[in-house]
Amino acid sequence: MEDIGLLVLGHGSTLPYNKALVEELAGMIKRKHPGPVRTAYLNANDPKIPEGLMSFAGTNVRKIVAIPLFLAAGVHTLEDIPRELGIPKGKHVGVIKIDGRDVEVTCAEPLGVDECIADLAYRRARESF
Amino acid sequence: MEDIGLLVLGHGSTLPYNKALVEELAGMIKRKHPGPVRTAYLNANDPKIPEGLMSFAGTNVRKIVAIPLFLAAGVHTLEDIPRELGIPKGKHVGVIKIDGRDVEVTCAEPLGVDECIADLAYRRARESF
Repeated sequence: MEDIGLLVLGHGSTLPYNKALVEELAGMIKRKHPGPVRTAYLNANDPKIPEGLMSFAGTNVRKIVAIPLFLAAGVHTLEDIPRELGIPKGKHVGVIKIDGRDVEVTCAEPLGVDECIADLAYRRARESF
Repeated sequence: MEDIGLLVLGHGSTLPYNKALVEELAGMIKRKHPGPVRTAYLNANDPKIPEGLMSFAGTNVRKIVAIPLFLAAGVHTLEDIPRELGIPKGKHVGVIKIDGRDVEVTCAEPLGVDECIADLAYRRARESF
């Protein structure tokens, strides 16, 4: 798995909180994954997604998996992010050149429904009881 | 806690996935909480937040805690949602009338950084390895 790069994607925001969250979560993911981990943003923050892909130069990855830090699928995860990643419409995998080599690019599903999200949300609620 | 109502809030979307996620997570939260649980949306879906608040009519809640299903703080959680909830600017609690009685309204923090989000994101990534 050392040859798989992870590109952790945030929505981006004019306020600092989205970028801070994405960077902290990427730091946690880095401790789980043996390959390189980078971050990028759809809007408002840098690096944008194309620069994020190019930030794997020099790493020898053969594949990049984008991880959209979005709760649900929507226009951002179904259209905007695949387009920015260079994944052809209707396909799940694109190919880009990094350091002159072909590198596969694909995108993970958004976080989605999971009991851990419900637990965390209810914990946040109880802080306000 | 039977007299605390939870209003689970989604961003809303023209696609069906955000509403489906919010409803499923609200169902999970309902199994943890002894009081009434409702849902509402900032944009695109119904009920909107004011209607969501009014949906606690007949429940005898003395307090409503909104749970924004958003990962990070931002303009939506800091400005748009408190405004729709009727929480005065600069305050953490508002008061609305339901069934002729005063009901406190407050808003929980967004989900934020948590190891469980990093675990879930990395699980989604591995599905694409």
